[in-house]
Amino acid sequence: MADNLYQKGINKIQELTASPDDNPTGFMNIGADFKDIAPDLEKYVVEFAFGGVYSRPGLDNKQKVLTTITALVAQGKPQIAMHIKTGLSVGLTPEEIVGCIMHLIPYTGFPSVLNALTVAKEVFAEEGVKVDTSAFE
Amino acid sequence: MADNLYQKGINKIQELTASPDDNPTGFMNIGADFKDIAPDLEKYVVEFAFGGVYSRPGLDNKQKVLTTITALVAQGKPQIAMHIKTGLSVGLTPEEIVGCIMHLIPYTGFPSVLNALTVAKEVFAEEGVKVDTSAFE
Amino acid sequence: MADNLYQKGINKIQELTASPDDNPTGFMNIGADFKDIAPDLEKYVVEFAFGGVYSRPGLDNKQKVLTTITALVAQGKPQIAMHIKTGLSVGLTPEEIVGCIMHLIPYTGFPSVLNALTVAKEVFAEEGVKVDTSAFE
Amino acid sequence: MADNLYQKGINKIQELTASPDDNPTGFMNIGADFKDIAPDLEKYVVEFAFGGVYSRPGLDNKQKVLTTITALVAQGKPQIAMHIKTGLSVGLTPEEIVGCIMHLIPYTGFPSVLNALTVAKEVFAEEGVKVDTSAFE
Amino acid sequence: MADNLYQKGINKIQELTASPDDNPTGFMNIGADFKDIAPDLEKYVVEFAFGGVYSRPGLDNKQKVLTTITALVAQGKPQIAMHIKTGLSVGLTPEEIVGCIMHLIPYTGFPSVLNALTVAKEVFAEEGVKVDTSAFE
Amino acid sequence: MADNLYQKGINKIQELTASPDDNPTGFMNIGADFKDIAPDLEKYVVEFAFGGVYSRPGLDNKQKVLTTITALVAQGKPQIAMHIKTGLSVGLTPEEIVGCIMHLIPYTGFPSVLNALTVAKEVFAEEGVKVDTSAFE
Repeated sequence: MADNLYQKGINKIQELTASPDDNPTGFMNIGADFKDIAPDLEKYVVEFAFGGVYSRPGLDNKQKVLTTITALVAQGKPQIAMHIKTGLSVGLTPEEIVGCIMHLIPYTGFPSVLNALTVAKEVFAEEGVKVDTSAFE
Repeated sequence: MADNLYQKGINKIQELTASPDDNPTGFMNIGADFKDIAPDLEKYVVEFAFGGVYSRPGLDNKQKVLTTITALVAQGKPQIAMHIKTGLSVGLTPEEIVGCIMHLIPYTGFPSVLNALTVAKEVFAEEGVKVDTSAFE
Repeated sequence: MADNLYQKGINKIQELTASPDDNPTGFMNIGADFKDIAPDLEKYVVEFAFGGVYSRPGLDNKQKVLTTITALVAQGKPQIAMHIKTGLSVGLTPEEIVGCIMHLIPYTGFPSVLNALTVAKEVFAEEGVKVDTSAFE
Repeated sequence: MADNLYQKGINKIQELTASPDDNPTGFMNIGADFKDIAPDLEKYVVEFAFGGVYSRPGLDNKQKVLTTITALVAQGKPQIAMHIKTGLSVGLTPEEIVGCIMHLIPYTGFPSVLNALTVAKEVFAEEGVKVDTSAFE
Repeated sequence: MADNLYQKGINKIQELTASPDDNPTGFMNIGADFKDIAPDLEKYVVEFAFGGVYSRPGLDNKQKVLTTITALVAQGKPQIAMHIKTGLSVGLTPEEIVGCIMHLIPYTGFPSVLNALTVAKEVFAEEGVKVDTSAFE
Repeated sequence: MADNLYQKGINKIQELTASPDDNPTGFMNIGADFKDIAPDLEKYVVEFAFGGVYSRPGLDNKQKVLTTITALVAQGKPQIAMHIKTGLSVGLTPEEIVGCIMHLIPYTGFPSVLNALTVAKEVFAEEGVKVDTSAFE
């Protein structure tokens, strides 16, 4: 049963990151680097965060990642980069990702938004993604 | 032109809150209570937040309100209640609103989520809204 | 197995709160009030927070509750009250609880500490607990 | 010497709050309510915060209180009210206090500012203070 | 009219940064780097933050920048550096800038203050600014 | 008397960091780098934080450092590294330090914990410290 929950979490991560079967967690940091100091961390990330919370009904994957990005921008966390990549993977358009960050100006102020856009721009450059800005012309 | 931007903001608020023409800002707090100490606040809220940011292309209204609710939960702000009402008004289901709050557990921890669910439960009771929990049975 | 993890969490809560067998979760808010909007919340609280994290080796119960109180003071969360009660239940002395809050002045500033001491004083009054201040005479 | 530092702090508080000699700390909360749980808190507040930091050269009293109010608005602390009263006492105009809060919109977002203006409006009402808004007409 | 508000914002930035006519925004980051992902960001920064909020009556420029620096220190934002440069430009003395940061110890704790002083020291070194510390001798 | 409080603070720092008599503050950053911009900072750190708060009765040194680490993790401050070193110096086991950080998952979420574990892992590597993970086998 615990194995099932772990597998459910791995499957969810593979779905979110569109990773191949021989590397199902792909670019996602699931805490595997901490085996020597906190061997149970990976289990919590996979089983609780992905097998549990990310597998909950209520929101679709695009909504879940948008919610994640928003929370990380509001808190100024460096994990924004990884979750922007996940957003592109689940089908959020670059315009939706930028739209989410820009929408936060009235709620977090400009500095949090500028910091997050800097990260978004870097991820988009790495991934070869262009933002369609024609709606602003 | 400024009048146009103000009107654009009022129109957006009316659209978001489904308010009648004779009370277009409905339940939304647009800062009108502060005319005697900060007469320009209402203009900033209407023109910048709603005529500007909320009228931006990129996200649809449901995504915008979901993003707003998320930011407020992450920060523990009392404005959560008003924006949950807005969420219901733009067509977010109660399941999506609860889903958004629950999704934040791995990013903000339990206390922020418990505090936000308490507010959601009160708003749902006021609005006569039931959450469909059959997916959990 | 899931039932086992749930039971493990309930046992941990009973241990932490010194609650009787017919009300094993005692004064602890485990999310049971949210059955109608988030039926899975209680499971997450019991299984993950208590069956998992609180049952981890590394810290004893007194250290765990001291750590919890500190995090809640640093964040200004209202759950401080409940966890001060838990602290008294696991054997933290009132002097240790006050010591923990006072120790945070250089890290969070005075306002967070004054707000937390106000809550501590209320809990101590409810519980009939006196702080031994003779070391300051 | 310690007595001198304590007296220096009391003198500073009296100066900031324009309190009479028979009640030199006036409306300022200096932690005296916590004598029974943290007898040393008052000493820290008076000696360190007021005898030390508030007595530092570099800023005048108006600048010091403006800085204090700003920090409390940015953090959403309830102590805003007491420090707005102190601001009025040291000669900040109501327009400067409102100006400080409004200036934070681009840095903290609207909700923090709306919450602080609500407090400012209450303090101004209690104190019989009117804001001159003619510059906005 | 929108052009006027944009120009008003540019003028305010030029005034704050003492920039030459052929580079009126000088060292200020107004979001121009994000034209390819968020073409409207610069307009919001210039029109709303500078044409609007920074052009508000109530505080003078020195008070406005002091308030900005305080908010950024309280939040730990990297934009502190740019706004310390702006502070020097509008005539805040280095002693006032350091005084503002030091004044925050009782409200944010030491770590935020140490981090901000590290930034201030770097900016002062770049700008060839010396702090007069004779008042402490 | 002030000299005595300063010396009391230095003695406490030496005790906490197990530093030699000819370098009693060892690896602890006491603000000495800021003599040229804030000459009084070191005095505040030594006298108030260490001569005062750290010398308070109520908690033992291990509890004090655990509380400090927790507050810094909850706030995401870079000072975590220095205080993990202090923790090892006062006799906290690596398992207690990791236990404290891991215990925060339900209160701060995963990102804060992952960031802190990254720092802990670096400090442990520098110090040649191994975490005993046999309890997880």
